[in-house]
Amino acid sequence: MSTVNERISQLREIMKREQIDFYVVPTADFHSSEYVSDYFKVRKFLSGFTGSAGTLVISQKEAGLWTDGRYFVQAAKQIADTEVVLYKMGEEGVPTIEDYLAKEISENQTVGFDGRTITASFGDTLAEKLKEKKVRFAYEKDLADEIWTDRPALPCTKTWVVSDEMSGQSAAEKLIRVRAEMKKNGAAHLLMSKLDDIMWLYNIRANDVTCNPVALSYTFISENEAVLFIQRDALTAEVEAYLEKNQVTCKDYSEIVDFVKTTPLSGKVWCAGRDINYLLYHLAKNRTEVIDLDNPTTIMKAVKNQTEMESIRKYYIEDSAVLTKFLFWMKKHAGKEPMDEISVAEKLDKMRSEIDGFLDLSFETISAYKANAAMAHYSATPEEKSDITNDGLYLVDSGAQYKGATTDVTRTIALGDITEEMKLHFTKVVCSMLRMADTKFLYGCTGRNLDIIAREPLWECALDYKHGTGHGIGFILNVHEGPQSLRWQYNEKMKETLFEEGMIVSDEPGMYIAGSHGIRIENILETVNEQKNEFGQFMGFRHLTYVPIDTDAIDIKYMEASDIEKLNRYHAAVYEKISPFFEGEELEILKNATKAI
Amino acid sequence: MSTVNERISQLREIMKREQIDFYVVPTADFHSSEYVSDYFKVRKFLSGFTGSAGTLVISQKEAGLWTDGRYFVQAAKQIADTEVVLYKMGEEGVPTIEDYLAKEISENQTVGFDGRTITASFGDTLAEKLKEKKVRFAYEKDLADEIWTDRPALPCTKTWVVSDEMSGQSAAEKLIRVRAEMKKNGAAHLLMSKLDDIMWLYNIRANDVTCNPVALSYTFISENEAVLFIQRDALTAEVEAYLEKNQVTCKDYSEIVDFVKTTPLSGKVWCAGRDINYLLYHLAKNRTEVIDLDNPTTIMKAVKNQTEMESIRKYYIEDSAVLTKFLFWMKKHAGKEPMDEISVAEKLDKMRSEIDGFLDLSFETISAYKANAAMAHYSATPEEKSDITNDGLYLVDSGAQYKGATTDVTRTIALGDITEEMKLHFTKVVCSMLRMADTKFLYGCTGRNLDIIAREPLWECALDYKHGTGHGIGFILNVHEGPQSLRWQYNEKMKETLFEEGMIVSDEPGMYIAGSHGIRIENILETVNEQKNEFGQFMGFRHLTYVPIDTDAIDIKYMEASDIEKLNRYHAAVYEKISPFFEGEELEILKNATKAI
Repeated sequence: MSTVNERISQLREIMKREQIDFYVVPTADFHSSEYVSDYFKVRKFLSGFTGSAGTLVISQKEAGLWTDGRYFVQAAKQIADTEVVLYKMGEEGVPTIEDYLAKEISENQTVGFDGRTITASFGDTLAEKLKEKKVRFAYEKDLADEIWTDRPALPCTKTWVVSDEMSGQSAAEKLIRVRAEMKKNGAAHLLMSKLDDIMWLYNIRANDVTCNPVALSYTFISENEAVLFIQRDALTAEVEAYLEKNQVTCKDYSEIVDFVKTTPLSGKVWCAGRDINYLLYHLAKNRTEVIDLDNPTTIMKAVKNQTEMESIRKYYIEDSAVLTKFLFWMKKHAGKEPMDEISVAEKLDKMRSEIDGFLDLSFETISAYKANAAMAHYSATPEEKSDITNDGLYLVDSGAQYKGATTDVTRTIALGDITEEMKLHFTKVVCSMLRMADTKFLYGCTGRNLDIIAREPLWECALDYKHGTGHGIGFILNVHEGPQSLRWQYNEKMKETLFEEGMIVSDEPGMYIAGSHGIRIENILETVNEQKNEFGQFMGFRHLTYVPIDTDAIDIKYMEASDIEKLNRYHAAVYEKISPFFEGEELEILKNATKAI
Repeated sequence: MSTVNERISQLREIMKREQIDFYVVPTADFHSSEYVSDYFKVRKFLSGFTGSAGTLVISQKEAGLWTDGRYFVQAAKQIADTEVVLYKMGEEGVPTIEDYLAKEISENQTVGFDGRTITASFGDTLAEKLKEKKVRFAYEKDLADEIWTDRPALPCTKTWVVSDEMSGQSAAEKLIRVRAEMKKNGAAHLLMSKLDDIMWLYNIRANDVTCNPVALSYTFISENEAVLFIQRDALTAEVEAYLEKNQVTCKDYSEIVDFVKTTPLSGKVWCAGRDINYLLYHLAKNRTEVIDLDNPTTIMKAVKNQTEMESIRKYYIEDSAVLTKFLFWMKKHAGKEPMDEISVAEKLDKMRSEIDGFLDLSFETISAYKANAAMAHYSATPEEKSDITNDGLYLVDSGAQYKGATTDVTRTIALGDITEEMKLHFTKVVCSMLRMADTKFLYGCTGRNLDIIAREPLWECALDYKHGTGHGIGFILNVHEGPQSLRWQYNEKMKETLFEEGMIVSDEPGMYIAGSHGIRIENILETVNEQKNEFGQFMGFRHLTYVPIDTDAIDIKYMEASDIEKLNRYHAAVYEKISPFFEGEELEILKNATKAI
């Protein structure tokens, strides 16, 4: 097997041949997926660094690796015996990749990258930064491919159909809606590479990306044609029949580039610059005018229909019941038998997998004890994990894919005595979560209007959590889904999304004290219309998650009367929704855990 | 005196001569001022309609007047004997002016207007709407001028200097800051027509616009030159000396157009498109590249320095004391002696005018009793006013210009029995105002993040007020000042402003029930930095206004414990701040009005 330095020098030879001065290797598949399967791990192949985030920039002079704080130690260790130089992102004096290129590159030089691995908007931002140097982009080739002789195959799992009964709307009906939006925006064609949008549109699912039930694919839609580019081996007879019935044509996944270069065009092409890859966007732009708006499917997918909502509500209750049983087990057994972060996560995952309709986890379960829970991206490993005993706080953030819902939920529980500060933080986070869930607002609000409802209980105490309050969630799709979110920061360039009835959103405030504890409480909410009157359409949320909140960690002196009332109302609903899944001693524990305080 | 129809037909002759097909006459001076003095009332001259808002569009075929709901009755009456046709803005089926023009105009026709009376951004938006018709704009001439033979003179009041001791920063120092911003943004020149920005920059004031202490002026700034265009007669020896000392050159107000056409340019010209008039913007753009950003002075002016703040705090206390005395008088005398909305407003205005340093009102006092207070732009007149007696709610929104502050404050008081609904609304509005004033937030928040803090108490009850929660306020300048505000609606094109220490903002939630009552409670707040820690810079507000809130109209059953605590804390501060201005029986009343509930 070749060494990292050998691979880099082989790449440099190819760069010379291709007249490329700087070659950029991000960590990405061709669809901006959250997780990258082995075929796409070019950065790991070239640098030896195995972390989930990082970008390599290679010139004849240097090979630089950019990664963030989570990976400084790991990356330094993994590149120690190579020529790769570590650039610690966010550290003082460390240039961003854009600034590095802007400084190092000479006029008329060429920056190369596999144009399928960066988004069109990122590429255009980079081009803007390098404008004055008259830099050329070479983006049509994946230079690493010819070096990487034992490259893994593309993932290729079997697709299946989400029946019209389950999705509530056939692919043909969805295509009518999409074509109406295309017409409204003056687009003759729509080119999409966002996998969850494509899955939603055609009512199909697969398993090509970890925890995301998607198939590698592209689609190109015109007035009279809908072409799905997908690996032939991924297709099943069921899927082929469904697509044919809905007048969707299939071509092989690999044909997309030639197709976009050559298919006859009758007008403008709609491509969402912040989702689609740079190569496809520019192939389209080289031929005709491009309309750069979010995919029409993005907002359609975000607004769940009644069929989806009913199925989601049902699965969330069963998922809640299982998590509740797990938490009761934790509180009873912690300190009495050996357990660690991984063993208990495995127990929870197994309990969930026994729910009828279970397909997969929706993300790897985060199981973090005490100070570990304060680390933003903590993930216990067999080598580094904590034993769990009967004191302090334990945090578990988990969810699953079911044949009818994607779930996500976080609870933090006290396994024994906790400090006064922990009680304050826990109680404030409970208030934050419940106030957001109970807020009423007028139609027209976006997440930037609402976010402060959750933050105010913490901000009042000069506390904060450095992450968004909430994200959308797919229907048997990605656990992180846009376009709506609950965030407060202002970004002039970021288009905001109004909350609509049928959108679901997470509500997950937290508090993290390095070296001590991490608290997060996450319910998933459904957006609903409330009364409409002369002032407008009032809106609100409904809980989808029904898992008790650990009152052992609460001190009511930190709550308003209305916060206590909210908690009691929530706990009464929890009992009503999940008690049918409980009996005997467990039912008694549930009764006690949900009684009014 | 000519009739309206005669004037319109004279204008049509001039339009023929000038080859103009549609002539647009808005209600505006050359600086987008909030109030328009007689010289600028061209729309009134041509249509006979005297309201404060309206636009006339004249073609050979029709003369159409667009105005809003406040003026439908008045406008219809005033144009009854003329050929002018009323277009009721906002009514179903009534086109906007842009839509009307887009429909009525033929290809290659010409739209005319006095390019000084519309902003560059409005003109450009109109041009975009008419793009497909290849319309020409004629904007260099004021066609009405030659018909209007007895036109009033331009307002021309004497300017005075806000001393460096009072402003806290000399004009020369402010110019250094402005030039630094110009350099940062690559502008060789800065052209401004926003009157309050110009007054702030040069530390001068006058009285050319009702209630706004400004002088008609323009300015043009380069690296080595600062030219103030101002009417010669407005200048005083004091002002001339101050400007000379600060290296500011004066030219006559009327010279601006020729100057912008001919002055040597050494680079890009910075013009704020949403403030500057269309004529000047396009004269500059015809010559060189224009940088369209808000004036650098806009944000500088919004952030008050310590000298300004100390003066503002002092005047607000005295202004609060006087308003409090007025309100006590109202509560004592209403029903016992004859009074009406106008007579009591005159009494309040007179009381304020006796404060040392009083210059003028900052806007016409709004004095509205019972149902009148529910009307958005109600203004009592000698012909239409209500007598005031001892029941129901009374609202007074008022303020003044002092030699050291601009004030603005609203209180609503119960003059006798009020209904349960009024108590609910009043109490909720009190909670809204106090919660906003007490909110803590991280640096980075804009008014869109914060607005919901004030609205939530009302939104919870499916109530709302259809106006913003707050606006900035000038320092001896306009009572409505940007760029910060407290508003919630999303507008993709609207740039938002982060709150900074030293910004002042009104906090004025309300509730309005047509035919019944109107409630508004307005305090002015100062933005301050609170603690800074690992989570960021926390910020908050401090009250500037110290006027009791009428507890007779409050029912504590509608308040949280924390709301009651906030009210009691506020009232204790009111007593502390304004009691030095009280004695005897009035002091007792103040004690009682501010005691804890």
